[in-house]
Amino acid sequence: MGQGGERKRRVVIIGGGFGGLYAARALARADVEITLLDRRNHHTFQPLLYQVATAGLNPADIAVPIRRILRRQKNVTVLLDEAASIDAEAGRVTLKDSGVLGYDFLIVATGATHSYFAHPEWERFAPGLKTIEDALEMRKRVFFAFEAAEREADPELHRDWLTFVIVGGGPTGVELAGTLAEIAKKTLAEDFRHIDPTRSRILLLEGGPHVLAAFVPALRDKARAQLDKIGVEVRTSAKVTGIDAGGVQVGGERIAARTVLWAAGVAASPLVRSLGAPLDHAGRVLVEPDLTVPGHPEIYVIGDVAARIQDGKPVPGVARAAIDGGRHAARDILRVIAGEPRRPFVYSDPGILATIGRGAGVADFGRLKLSGFLAWMAWLFIHILFLVGFRNRFAVVLEWAMAYLTYDRGARLITGKLPDVQTRALAAPASVRSEGEIAQIAQQRTPP
Amino acid sequence: MGQGGERKRRVVIIGGGFGGLYAARALARADVEITLLDRRNHHTFQPLLYQVATAGLNPADIAVPIRRILRRQKNVTVLLDEAASIDAEAGRVTLKDSGVLGYDFLIVATGATHSYFAHPEWERFAPGLKTIEDALEMRKRVFFAFEAAEREADPELHRDWLTFVIVGGGPTGVELAGTLAEIAKKTLAEDFRHIDPTRSRILLLEGGPHVLAAFVPALRDKARAQLDKIGVEVRTSAKVTGIDAGGVQVGGERIAARTVLWAAGVAASPLVRSLGAPLDHAGRVLVEPDLTVPGHPEIYVIGDVAARIQDGKPVPGVARAAIDGGRHAARDILRVIAGEPRRPFVYSDPGILATIGRGAGVADFGRLKLSGFLAWMAWLFIHILFLVGFRNRFAVVLEWAMAYLTYDRGARLITGKLPDVQTRALAAPASVRSEGEIAQIAQQRTPP
Repeated sequence: MGQGGERKRRVVIIGGGFGGLYAARALARADVEITLLDRRNHHTFQPLLYQVATAGLNPADIAVPIRRILRRQKNVTVLLDEAASIDAEAGRVTLKDSGVLGYDFLIVATGATHSYFAHPEWERFAPGLKTIEDALEMRKRVFFAFEAAEREADPELHRDWLTFVIVGGGPTGVELAGTLAEIAKKTLAEDFRHIDPTRSRILLLEGGPHVLAAFVPALRDKARAQLDKIGVEVRTSAKVTGIDAGGVQVGGERIAARTVLWAAGVAASPLVRSLGAPLDHAGRVLVEPDLTVPGHPEIYVIGDVAARIQDGKPVPGVARAAIDGGRHAARDILRVIAGEPRRPFVYSDPGILATIGRGAGVADFGRLKLSGFLAWMAWLFIHILFLVGFRNRFAVVLEWAMAYLTYDRGARLITGKLPDVQTRALAAPASVRSEGEIAQIAQQRTPP
Repeated sequence: MGQGGERKRRVVIIGGGFGGLYAARALARADVEITLLDRRNHHTFQPLLYQVATAGLNPADIAVPIRRILRRQKNVTVLLDEAASIDAEAGRVTLKDSGVLGYDFLIVATGATHSYFAHPEWERFAPGLKTIEDALEMRKRVFFAFEAAEREADPELHRDWLTFVIVGGGPTGVELAGTLAEIAKKTLAEDFRHIDPTRSRILLLEGGPHVLAAFVPALRDKARAQLDKIGVEVRTSAKVTGIDAGGVQVGGERIAARTVLWAAGVAASPLVRSLGAPLDHAGRVLVEPDLTVPGHPEIYVIGDVAARIQDGKPVPGVARAAIDGGRHAARDILRVIAGEPRRPFVYSDPGILATIGRGAGVADFGRLKLSGFLAWMAWLFIHILFLVGFRNRFAVVLEWAMAYLTYDRGARLITGKLPDVQTRALAAPASVRSEGEIAQIAQQRTPP
């Protein structure tokens, strides 16, 4: 149709996360020309990012080149580039480096980024967890903190280095806190000479009244009890009012800590602002029931960038909703091409789950509610099942089996530049010493 | 002895590479206080770095936290810090961040760094391969080159992106070239829509008359034939006179290439300059026969920072020589403490080997000389045998078995900032286009 006669329809997909990838796959047998655009060359299995941040898995275990996943689907061209803006009226996407892309159908699946509640200056002190790079930054800071404590001669400062604050009591925060407790109390227990890692403090701060607020009260209580048991200090209704290189401010209280991790707010990727469509408070597009942009039935917005209310509740920003959204958009495009009527998107919630350290967790599958070891097994099984690619599934199972048996975490590497934000406070007057003192310290720098 | 009476002797080891690590281990049962200092938290198995650079192995497969290796050796304190200078007269090491360290015996094992033959400006265009960070930089550039070619609309520029130049025909250069050939011709063969990776050019430039010059002529010739067979263009007596963002200058000839990898010169770590000892042309310390610094019998210099002639030939800068040097220093220190006479260092050369891509190689163990598949098997066996830690050995064997069976390379991730040096040339006048041209290109950006 149009000027091209039998020209194939061009489908552009922005984003190679769960939504974009499953949309492309659902169009595998369609007679369309697909371009999948991502600013990274890999799909990231985000639910397991916290395992990379805590050295349990390698980046390549949970990140797969998008190109490799779609290698045999010949109707897809994968492009490594970033969408700078979308011109919905002209029907084209401007790329950062390689020109513009025209489209007949557009699927926007650019996901979420961190939000610091109008405090962007907190980001450098408290990195979030959305990408492989984020996970490596967290890993560096966590393991560097123990190194810095070991070499710090002033025992007063050991406490600051061995205090870890996680902001946000959702599944990511709980998973990070549980794993950090395991690292401090088991993995590193014997590795140092001047500090005792088992005396580390792990604080989990949640602004609302409950951790894992999305779970039913009985499971929330079980999660809380499991966190207590492994030594995580949980503080609820703890609203963070300040973060700097030396710690966190919670109302009137100051928590001195050199390592702060962010697992709280998320906001939609800013690209969708260029659509000119109505957005909610988190910057997500208020989509039509079929996930299209109001006034632009050729543009679908799916996953974490879409705001959709169903049965009075928002569709959650989870992998499952993105996958379902991607498949819906693909099938709806095929219906439009075939001249069939569009259908509304329906999300069927499969349940929610979270792990809490080693061998514990909570899971809510509607009628079936699990906690403890069974919930953990369910989590393990489902996450391995959904990992893209046999090879990765195999590697992850092996890494986990090894970690479970030995408490060891293989990927404890500190790579790249050392985190200057953490070390900044080292230069504070309290730790400046005279040559004589330093020489004395050097004498003591050997095991007693 | 001395003022301390029965005070334990303090041994400071700078560097956690092969030399430093084996020195520490050889002192495991000694009644001394050891401090092992490294600016990284991990020991890197350098002979396999090229496998990380070419996405065959994960960083954590070949890098192990030094602290973990020495966890049970209670007479060692591991410190993450960098030695800024050595004051040989005062007997102390000044650290970058955490004060000074006094010592009774010092073992300097800081290894080698890249040398660009008085052209430090080449480094950003042609990264070398000494650390995990270096390997990740190479990996990023290699895989980004294919991505950039895929999105480049001007076919004239595809050739530049698909030309890879490796400078230096020693084992590292040969290994990189062989693996790159495999990646281009097998791993990526089906992954792109606009370019044909199998048409990539891999050039190996060697300034001297032979690649693998350390091998006997028969093996050199076999290596050359194997490189020809897998499609690597070898140029000998090819002296590089210039490197920039667009390629390499070899005398009067210009080779246009967006990816240049450096596997040529090495120089000693600059720390040894502060010793005030005589150095050779590569900055290595001209040590005494027992590997000590002239006039300072308490300071041993081992591995790649030491220059030692034995039987008229220099002791090579290989892992084996560093390991032997570390063990020698440790045992000599024990002899001095016990009041026994010092002994000279004797290096017994176990042979040399190199791989050439998949299933080929050359090996020279004196009377036993191998080439082809047998040499490759010998290389595999020896490298797995020497990998530190059972866990890593296991992971590496699995990764390799998988790669061998499938031609796949699991760790093809492009992480961190995209390489601006490579993309710089994109902004050159030749590739600037009008809006109209860009729109036209966008139309064509789908498979035919």
